Amino acid sequence: MFPIDDQRLLQQLTFLNEIDKLKTIFRKTNLTSQPDRLENSAEHSWHLAFYVLVLSEYSNVDIDLLLTLKMVLLHDIVEIDAGDTFIYDEKAFANKYEKEQAAATRLFGLLPADIGQEFKLIWEEFEEGKTPEAKFAGSVDRIQPILHNYITGGGSWKRHNIIKDQVNVKLPLIGEGSNHLLQLIKSVIDDSVDKNILRE
Amino acid sequence: MFPIDDQRLLQQLTFLNEIDKLKTIFRKTNLTSQPDRLENSAEHSWHLAFYVLVLSEYSNVDIDLLLTLKMVLLHDIVEIDAGDTFIYDEKAFANKYEKEQAAATRLFGLLPADIGQEFKLIWEEFEEGKTPEAKFAGSVDRIQPILHNYITGGGSWKRHNIIKDQVNVKLPLIGEGSNHLLQLIKSVIDDSVDKNILRE
Repeated sequence: MFPIDDQRLLQQLTFLNEIDKLKTIFRKTNLTSQPDRLENSAEHSWHLAFYVLVLSEYSNVDIDLLLTLKMVLLHDIVEIDAGDTFIYDEKAFANKYEKEQAAATRLFGLLPADIGQEFKLIWEEFEEGKTPEAKFAGSVDRIQPILHNYITGGGSWKRHNIIKDQVNVKLPLIGEGSNHLLQLIKSVIDDSVDKNILRE
Repeated sequence: MFPIDDQRLLQQLTFLNEIDKLKTIFRKTNLTSQPDRLENSAEHSWHLAFYVLVLSEYSNVDIDLLLTLKMVLLHDIVEIDAGDTFIYDEKAFANKYEKEQAAATRLFGLLPADIGQEFKLIWEEFEEGKTPEAKFAGSVDRIQPILHNYITGGGSWKRHNIIKDQVNVKLPLIGEGSNHLLQLIKSVIDDSVDKNILRE
């Protein structure tokens, strides 16, 4: 595709072109700035990078900022092959793991082995959710759509008939990354119920 | 807007919500994965983060990866107020500086002073283009649209009647960040002329 012989650079450019597709993968979250449009996973990943940069002081424990940034920037790349899985779609979650593993192997495999291996390990670390960086990245990945639903007066909650209990089930993972931000989200959810944005 | 009293967190959330608008600012570059759609500045910034992560080895000198990532992630936020300026639109460039300075003051001013000040300094460093990080960030910001025009068979070059000389004028800045990537881009431009993607 590119007029060069350098195999390493060719692999790098091929990956950079392939991930352009993440801009065409749409999530269930509405933009707050244009509520009639859904968010795509590339711009979502960009937005999460700022959640990390601006809110990292609220992590329960110190985190490596560069690693956490890499994590949120690449966490959704597997969706290019596996698609976006709505957090409340239990059926779709059934074979999510296998689909995303295959996607990670193909997509990160486009890169020179040293970079591809690093990215795949970071993606697996995010998915496992055990390290401080993965926990904080997982928190902001859950917080952002809740804030968007709140600000847009319901968003994906209303469109998909989500009730408070379904949202609450997902909250403990936010607290694993940040108890401070979990308190914020609890207030937002209570206020959402009071304002009929979210059904009891 | 948010049901909390914590002024610092309110400022942080206000900024995070405000920058959602960058997803509605459209550039002149076509997606390669969906060539009939233009790229917005949020997903562009995400894409550049990967250009930095994947290609930093080609920087002329060692760079601080975290700083360079912050730079590409935030370099276009001023466009929320100032709009996107097409690189070949000389007239629009005339008052670009004043408009963007005012935008930076307002937008980064939404944040608590410590974070807002850090972001504004990083943005100014990018604009000045003097440090190794700013030079490399500037390089990838110029390389990505050229590759998109090449891959999509003309893109913004064809739509805006851009000729080779206009593209060449912008090339030295790529070499300031990476001589290796400048050689790639020269090959791409020569091939573009051979294939009638770019007019001589």
